[in-house]
Amino acid sequence: MTQLVRVHNFNISSDGYGAGINQSLDRPFGDADPSALFAWSGATAHGPTRTEPGGSRGFDDYCTREWHRNIGAEIMGRNKFGPQRGPWENYDWQGWWGDEPVFHTPVFVLTHHVRPSITLGETTFHFLDASPKEALARALEAADGKDVRIGGGAITIREFLDADLIDTLHVAVAPVEFGQGERLWETPEELTDRFHLEQIPSPTGGVVHHFLWRR
Amino acid sequence: MTQLVRVHNFNISSDGYGAGINQSLDRPFGDADPSALFAWSGATAHGPTRTEPGGSRGFDDYCTREWHRNIGAEIMGRNKFGPQRGPWENYDWQGWWGDEPVFHTPVFVLTHHVRPSITLGETTFHFLDASPKEALARALEAADGKDVRIGGGAITIREFLDADLIDTLHVAVAPVEFGQGERLWETPEELTDRFHLEQIPSPTGGVVHHFLWRR
Repeated sequence: MTQLVRVHNFNISSDGYGAGINQSLDRPFGDADPSALFAWSGATAHGPTRTEPGGSRGFDDYCTREWHRNIGAEIMGRNKFGPQRGPWENYDWQGWWGDEPVFHTPVFVLTHHVRPSITLGETTFHFLDASPKEALARALEAADGKDVRIGGGAITIREFLDADLIDTLHVAVAPVEFGQGERLWETPEELTDRFHLEQIPSPTGGVVHHFLWRR
Repeated sequence: MTQLVRVHNFNISSDGYGAGINQSLDRPFGDADPSALFAWSGATAHGPTRTEPGGSRGFDDYCTREWHRNIGAEIMGRNKFGPQRGPWENYDWQGWWGDEPVFHTPVFVLTHHVRPSITLGETTFHFLDASPKEALARALEAADGKDVRIGGGAITIREFLDADLIDTLHVAVAPVEFGQGERLWETPEELTDRFHLEQIPSPTGGVVHHFLWRR
């Protein structure tokens, strides 16, 4: 089976931003209020933030549960891993996700400031100073035949798109405007020369699901 | 994790029939022409009839690929297994699916005429003369922690619905009328006292996807 490079459940504002400016420890999404971005997935049975039983099992849940299906590794940008910039002052920061991160696979964090790998539960974070193409080669090998997820943020996904390394994307567009920040696109039509595009409103979640796959 | 009992990619006509009358070896779906029922899934990357690479990876493909995700066993009616009725004249018939059936799990065939189990590739067919509840207990055990799919036909799904044994259903309703045959429902609203219902038109496949899950 061909290994695919996939984006799933990436949430953006209607004007294309995945996060605002001024990211900090208290505000992982910067000045923007991310609650409108995550309401749809939080309501589903397989939403990443769910800790209690229950949740919807309709169309939105089909989307959330694809996030981990057949994924063997993730690549993320350093700004998804943490709010720090520049050289690490120390190695105390181990990501936002506690002792049992949700990934359960190798995760490759792209950064110009590498540091030793961290294993938490079933997740190991590796730090790479590498081009998208080089990082993907490492991740595909680590994924052991499974697919690789590009986890974001928007700038990281954009870099992989610009290098033409992504096969499929699922992006949920929320009815809120951020005005500035990390931008995935001005409009998804930017990608329709290379990708098929389907746009399907969520029946209950308020977002419009965007499915893109290579032509 | 709770084991779920699921129906996936069950295709019916707009008037609720999964198959016509007069099933035979040449016409597994009886007098009805099933092509309108299967066009949507056949176009997808994960459609069960796909033998070549390619296929769409949008919303329809999200539906087809759920068919095998986390499924540990299937239960089907005898009419899905074959066109024979009454006592088996011999055991030559081994299903419609060749040497490598698509199931890759134990499959429990409900019949009043039991026969020895058959193993083909990774699939083993077991024949049970049992109530839906008894058959489900066997299948849940065989599924080893995974979910159980109720594979059809319509009458079998209806029996499991009437015994209130099904947790989730995905039914694709095609824009064609059969007029008679094996009927799943007159209208999906029959089930909304017990199930949530979402109806989402396929962007390209012509069908309306129906998602139902327990209230």
